[in-house]
Amino acid sequence: MALSAGKLINLKQLSDASGRFLMLAIDQRGSMEQALQKVLGDGRKQTPEDVVAAKVAITGVLAPHSTATLMDPIYGFPYTLEALPPKVGVLLAVEHSGYEAGPSGKGRKAMILDGWSVSKVKRSGSNAVKLLIHYHPDAPEEVLKHQHDVVRQVGEACVEEDIPFLLETVGYAVDEPSTDGPEYALAKPRITIASATEFSKPEYRVDVLKLEFPTSLKFTEEFCNAYFDSKTREPVYGVKEVKDICKQLDAASSKPWVILSGGVDIDEFLFNLQFSVDAGASGFLCGRAMWQQSLQFYPDTDAMVRFLETDGVYNFNRIKAIASNATPWNSRGDGGAPSLDQKSLEWHKEYRGS
Amino acid sequence: MALSAGKLINLKQLSDASGRFLMLAIDQRGSMEQALQKVLGDGRKQTPEDVVAAKVAITGVLAPHSTATLMDPIYGFPYTLEALPPKVGVLLAVEHSGYEAGPSGKGRKAMILDGWSVSKVKRSGSNAVKLLIHYHPDAPEEVLKHQHDVVRQVGEACVEEDIPFLLETVGYAVDEPSTDGPEYALAKPRITIASATEFSKPEYRVDVLKLEFPTSLKFTEEFCNAYFDSKTREPVYGVKEVKDICKQLDAASSKPWVILSGGVDIDEFLFNLQFSVDAGASGFLCGRAMWQQSLQFYPDTDAMVRFLETDGVYNFNRIKAIASNATPWNSRGDGGAPSLDQKSLEWHKEYRGS
Repeated sequence: MALSAGKLINLKQLSDASGRFLMLAIDQRGSMEQALQKVLGDGRKQTPEDVVAAKVAITGVLAPHSTATLMDPIYGFPYTLEALPPKVGVLLAVEHSGYEAGPSGKGRKAMILDGWSVSKVKRSGSNAVKLLIHYHPDAPEEVLKHQHDVVRQVGEACVEEDIPFLLETVGYAVDEPSTDGPEYALAKPRITIASATEFSKPEYRVDVLKLEFPTSLKFTEEFCNAYFDSKTREPVYGVKEVKDICKQLDAASSKPWVILSGGVDIDEFLFNLQFSVDAGASGFLCGRAMWQQSLQFYPDTDAMVRFLETDGVYNFNRIKAIASNATPWNSRGDGGAPSLDQKSLEWHKEYRGS
Repeated sequence: MALSAGKLINLKQLSDASGRFLMLAIDQRGSMEQALQKVLGDGRKQTPEDVVAAKVAITGVLAPHSTATLMDPIYGFPYTLEALPPKVGVLLAVEHSGYEAGPSGKGRKAMILDGWSVSKVKRSGSNAVKLLIHYHPDAPEEVLKHQHDVVRQVGEACVEEDIPFLLETVGYAVDEPSTDGPEYALAKPRITIASATEFSKPEYRVDVLKLEFPTSLKFTEEFCNAYFDSKTREPVYGVKEVKDICKQLDAASSKPWVILSGGVDIDEFLFNLQFSVDAGASGFLCGRAMWQQSLQFYPDTDAMVRFLETDGVYNFNRIKAIASNATPWNSRGDGGAPSLDQKSLEWHKEYRGS
């Protein structure tokens, strides 16, 4: 695996010594605002200062346990950077939170955050660029083209700046009635695998894929009976099939990939992670599964910190233990261990740049 | 201490969790070529491949023990980067090895390496820019102006790229007969302190100074009698005076500073480091004192590695133990702990960059 200097150095900064990604996500914006509003109730509207305060509490406790932490550049990075211990990598999001609707309200288009760029992420000293896009292979052509173009542009900018590119794909309902029903649970493997297949193509210049778990365990024969929540559902598959789908996802991804937690609770995420690691994932980039329960204490940030220091760290330790058997990113593929793309006495002259 | 994002993140990557710089220097070019030629003798001329082979052996064994490693972009970085463990920072030299002579051969002028730049260092994913200049306050005006200009230009480029700037100043004989005699030993405090004073000025935008030990212990009453080598010398000062000079150097440097080994043997460097740490240094950036003895085995790189794994690591452990009482860079000065220069919800828009 031949890599340019900036990609090689910075990918190493994201992983542990054995090449496993044990990463914390605290870049949530829209979902964090909603969660805080729910806790604050009708009493008052949540403000940017609430988001900052919650992020400072969570990042301060959990980031030191991560190999790298994914932040947003508005509420997170400027307020939590100085508390980050040395040797913890930083990933920064470039997208605008949310999306623009496609034609006739169908489909979701990603946007880059106004006033922000890949070049600024690089200049800020961060180790990687993260882009989130919503993706569904059945979205209108115009929407698919838009998403492909955005990913390609960010990928090219990351090559220009010589910084790793982590692409997160999240599915959504297009013709399915919602993401909560059995139709979506059945469609999820196809959506996830199509995303991994598409963005593994070399033209997108992705270095690491951040993928959703390709099924919903709530719809398995084993776990459909109110195992993870209070609801009983009709099963659409079993765990054996789920494991096979995870292997298909791994086969579809020619890039190292990590699993995201996407709002599921820690109990479900432990299974998601185990099956992903068994199939070939290189670790996790996990947010809410680890820390969302701490939000119930807001605005008592002292209570949040106490909860995070016990339950939060307990969650982190368990998922790290599972990920200790993940596939090292630097042993993936047939290219062997990563090396510099040009070992030459002329490297310093020929290396791109002004 | 308010710092921009890129300076703050990358300074942290150079130090340990307590803010101490425990750094390896393996960026030698001219002095490495000379040392290898000495070992190879008249049998054959040393080649670039010899320098690469020696650097691969030394870096592979010692870099993992450092908080960060200083490399050169020709023989070192392209060949040793992939063996560098995660979480070890990288500093890259920007100067051409050697110097250009001043008017009538008097004075030394620094040059930037052809085809290389601060911008390329940043793009490569390295954590800091290192510039070495020769400096003597008695050099011709034209030479002093040149050196000031080069430092100022590199400092401005480091601000532009938002990457830490480590400046190394090395004295040399101007009106003194040589650097080996008592005249130079007596002049060294003035030269070193003048360098620290000059380049602490805000206009140079230096983040860390890499300084020479401000005296020569070989010329002290205590150590003049063939203590460090086979030569007996007339003393020009005593250790008590040396300690006071170290404190003056610390007072002259308003920036965090590290001590270099400058070719002295490990026994002498242990004293240099102790007195520097006691005076306020923030650690070391040490090269030859740690590894130069391993070169005697070249071209048997296996024997080099065996020596480095025992004696080299022993040297490193002893100097790290002394530096464990160094002044953390992030507690230096009256500015308090380092923080981001702009904590604001508009940071991402206002942060410089395109």
